[in-house]
Amino acid sequence: MELDAARQTEAGDSESPSNMELEDAPKETPEAVEPATDAAAAQDPALPAEYERLFKVVEENPEDFNGWVYLLQYVEQENHLEASRKAFDAFFLHYPYCYGYWKKYADIEKKHGYIHMADEVYRRGLQAIPLSVDLWLHYITFLRENQDTSDGEAENRIRASYEHAVLACGTDFRSDRLWEAYIAWETEQGKLANVTAVYDRILCIPTQLYSQHFQKFKEHVQSNNPKHFLSEEEFVQLRVELANANKPSGDDAPGEELPPGTEDLVTEIENMRHKVIETRQEVFNHNEHEVSKRWAFEEGIKRPYFHVKALEKTQLNNWREYLDFELENGTPERVVVLFERCLIACALYEEFWIKYAKYLESYSVEGVRHIFKKACTVHLPKKPTVHLLWAAFEEQQGSVEEARGILKAMEEAVPGLAMVRLRRVSLERRHGNMDEAEALLRDGITNGKNSSESSFYAVKLARQLVKVQKSIGKAKKVLLEAVEKDETNPKLYLNLLELEYSGDVQQNEAEILACFDRALSSPMSLEQRLTFSQRKVEFLEDFGSDINVLVAAYEQHQRLEPQFISYQLQIWNITYLDTRL
Amino acid sequence: MELDAARQTEAGDSESPSNMELEDAPKETPEAVEPATDAAAAQDPALPAEYERLFKVVEENPEDFNGWVYLLQYVEQENHLEASRKAFDAFFLHYPYCYGYWKKYADIEKKHGYIHMADEVYRRGLQAIPLSVDLWLHYITFLRENQDTSDGEAENRIRASYEHAVLACGTDFRSDRLWEAYIAWETEQGKLANVTAVYDRILCIPTQLYSQHFQKFKEHVQSNNPKHFLSEEEFVQLRVELANANKPSGDDAPGEELPPGTEDLVTEIENMRHKVIETRQEVFNHNEHEVSKRWAFEEGIKRPYFHVKALEKTQLNNWREYLDFELENGTPERVVVLFERCLIACALYEEFWIKYAKYLESYSVEGVRHIFKKACTVHLPKKPTVHLLWAAFEEQQGSVEEARGILKAMEEAVPGLAMVRLRRVSLERRHGNMDEAEALLRDGITNGKNSSESSFYAVKLARQLVKVQKSIGKAKKVLLEAVEKDETNPKLYLNLLELEYSGDVQQNEAEILACFDRALSSPMSLEQRLTFSQRKVEFLEDFGSDINVLVAAYEQHQRLEPQFISYQLQIWNITYLDTRL
Repeated sequence: MELDAARQTEAGDSESPSNMELEDAPKETPEAVEPATDAAAAQDPALPAEYERLFKVVEENPEDFNGWVYLLQYVEQENHLEASRKAFDAFFLHYPYCYGYWKKYADIEKKHGYIHMADEVYRRGLQAIPLSVDLWLHYITFLRENQDTSDGEAENRIRASYEHAVLACGTDFRSDRLWEAYIAWETEQGKLANVTAVYDRILCIPTQLYSQHFQKFKEHVQSNNPKHFLSEEEFVQLRVELANANKPSGDDAPGEELPPGTEDLVTEIENMRHKVIETRQEVFNHNEHEVSKRWAFEEGIKRPYFHVKALEKTQLNNWREYLDFELENGTPERVVVLFERCLIACALYEEFWIKYAKYLESYSVEGVRHIFKKACTVHLPKKPTVHLLWAAFEEQQGSVEEARGILKAMEEAVPGLAMVRLRRVSLERRHGNMDEAEALLRDGITNGKNSSESSFYAVKLARQLVKVQKSIGKAKKVLLEAVEKDETNPKLYLNLLELEYSGDVQQNEAEILACFDRALSSPMSLEQRLTFSQRKVEFLEDFGSDINVLVAAYEQHQRLEPQFISYQLQIWNITYLDTRL
Repeated sequence: MELDAARQTEAGDSESPSNMELEDAPKETPEAVEPATDAAAAQDPALPAEYERLFKVVEENPEDFNGWVYLLQYVEQENHLEASRKAFDAFFLHYPYCYGYWKKYADIEKKHGYIHMADEVYRRGLQAIPLSVDLWLHYITFLRENQDTSDGEAENRIRASYEHAVLACGTDFRSDRLWEAYIAWETEQGKLANVTAVYDRILCIPTQLYSQHFQKFKEHVQSNNPKHFLSEEEFVQLRVELANANKPSGDDAPGEELPPGTEDLVTEIENMRHKVIETRQEVFNHNEHEVSKRWAFEEGIKRPYFHVKALEKTQLNNWREYLDFELENGTPERVVVLFERCLIACALYEEFWIKYAKYLESYSVEGVRHIFKKACTVHLPKKPTVHLLWAAFEEQQGSVEEARGILKAMEEAVPGLAMVRLRRVSLERRHGNMDEAEALLRDGITNGKNSSESSFYAVKLARQLVKVQKSIGKAKKVLLEAVEKDETNPKLYLNLLELEYSGDVQQNEAEILACFDRALSSPMSLEQRLTFSQRKVEFLEDFGSDINVLVAAYEQHQRLEPQFISYQLQIWNITYLDTRL
């Protein structure tokens, strides 16, 4: 809600030109609708009840994607600007990868006359998902329709936007439409040399329509004059090259003074065209080879966009294999673009975030941190593994306080995860805060959501007390208290047993037998008691001092077992080892 | 074979009257066949080849019951005395409970004219299976047909035999035929008072035909004169009682001088009969009550005789329940008879031998020893549990050398049983022979029938070295040698790990990690290595000093796991505890 307040302020301020912090933003041109900023701000408490109801649903459960869809549909239908802003802003905190909604949001702003705000929305959207060809195309269309042409810089601004777009997502295998739009626009502007330059870039990028681009490039060459479609530099260079090639051998006259007749000119144009295509053919061949290596992987991507629904296993596998391929064969740029593409389609799968972070480790600590932060704070606020890895990463960097905060935040988002609690414990232990480590485990015991969970922490604490604090007495106390509350948990009895067993078994024989008897007289299931009874017999066989006690334990075991027959084989085949493994 | 030689000697000597050590044995009367002792002894090397073949089969595998049947059928058909003796004597060492074969054996001796030997066979048989009503009946028939009547003691001898028989098996629920035969024989001898005395005994024994006996008893009373069928003592006492009862009250004349008229006599006889039956009626009612409590159990016994085939589960259960009933309700005599009966039908089930021995514990050490010995040396030479209990019993009695011998014999009968070897080890350990205990385990390692068995003993030895001899160094050596020979055994790696873990985990961190790495770089299955990898991560989480090492272990674990997805959940949910339980 804090952020919504912030956005409203920004919306309110957007009327003032001084707020137009972006240099090349289109001029604000309120049309039919006159936005009343103060009124809009005042509207806030008067947001429709239905809106409040729908908003409450997603506020309480941001993972309810359909809830968001209902909310956004509602604000769009109602054409309520403030409600829309609040809704969309909140939505994008959780789902920044839904490019279609950025467009909708921008359209709403535009419809209400806030062209500057619409521009701002597009920019925010493109920052969130710079790989979206669609969003770039929508944005440039918006720019072309809404820009101020009075300063004569309109063409340059559009060109700059295309450049920005192809830099952001032009190496994407599916970026063809953007490149085509760029070429079409330059053609429209009559800048044929620019068209050639754009072709020269796309022809060496592996994309889906690589072959079609080359075809169109050849048409472009065939139907235009080299003088127009080549840069001056290339044109001059080519002429010289052709002249040198045609000059009879031994002739030493410089080619630049050659007086061309009409016949010669036609030939020269054809020769130049031929040469232009010939050089691109080589590039094309190389690019075709690169495409062929990626074709199957690209074919396997059936859903390149973000969706909350789970991806099929084959698609997940395809991403894994494609990434591994590119990690081995691609340039760092291609690898990063593929990771970014993958993380749109697979944003909800922590394995890819983790793989990306791992990849970036050898390049940039800040890059790794950025990826972990994006994964944990935006897309996967409830996934523990990526949080644990982020915390480990920060601890490795020496940022103990940061690691502590990450684990705490995860625990607040999803309380009760043992793995997170144990990492908090081990973080404190590693940094010498044994009291805090112990307190965290004791808190786990006290606040366990059931007796089994409390017992889990009791066992962990007992082990820590024995192994780290070297206090068998304290450990025993913890386990005895736990066993009082969780009388049927075999793990507690077993750990008590191990505690005694870890000492001198001959001196501790009485205590060990008392442990066994505690288990045997407990309300544990018969099956469990039988296991303890078997262990007791075996302990006495291996370490007991008195044959009478062994025989008595054996007879006690018989009485426990309802069917005499079956234990005859069981009893002697079980060893400590077997029961522990 | 030694015993066979002994028997032949006895057979040879049987010609000489001085060998007739049994007082009441029937006189030797060789008939048609003249046994040539020397010739018979000389025959030995000339036993038929087919006999040798058949004998070899059972000699090599005494548990092949059908093999015995073929052998015994063969000697019977061939009518070969020496071969028969050798075969039967050998057979009864293993199957003394096959009463029918004792009869066959006696018949063969008789057929060859060796009446004394036949008698001897019967006596041996009845000593082996005194509860066999059939064998007793055959024997008494044999005695009646073959006894020497010249000394006038024939009747007494037969009566003594019947007495011997009913004392041996007359409390058996199914002993009716014996009692009936006894009654019929006494009736035949005209000893009606004896008949009554026998009825008086059978009428208070719960047997199958208890009701029929009472019926027949009443007929016996009705159709005979009390003077004849009552003992003189009872007859006189009854007359006095009746006289006193009929005498008008106040009359003080003594009843013994009463002069009886014929009328009075008839009345008196009827009154006596009435009184006799009346007193037995009470006994009968009590007995009927006892029968009713056992009827269902007796109905459940479908196969009271010995057979090598397994008994049905319901029959085994019936024996268990019947024994428990009698243990709670019966007299010690009834309990013992029921155990003896049970151990004919269930001779091949060690649980009943063990139960019997356990029962006898509070009565007689020698009784227990006898039962264990019979079970282990005759019926169950290959069953380890009863041997282990016998050895434990002897150890409890302080007979360590005896216990040692029992375990050794068992190991020779069935080599390679870990439970027996471990008891030998623990016996030596309990009596302070640590060198011998260690040697036995080392022998287990050396002579294990496969690497897994050798490793089993290596683990046991390592534990003993650590826990009893307190030598971690020696234990480690044992495990390291074992792991060299059995590289894929996870238990060895785990025990090495426990060895290091049992010390100071902070000081031993490097050694513990080295143990993990040894396991991880071993040729164990991927699944096993994954488990060790998980344990390593968890160890580092719980006790590791360096977050970098933890993260590296986590990444190593990832590389091990072919499917990234699945381990994400696994890794953090496993605790030491879980993997050990």
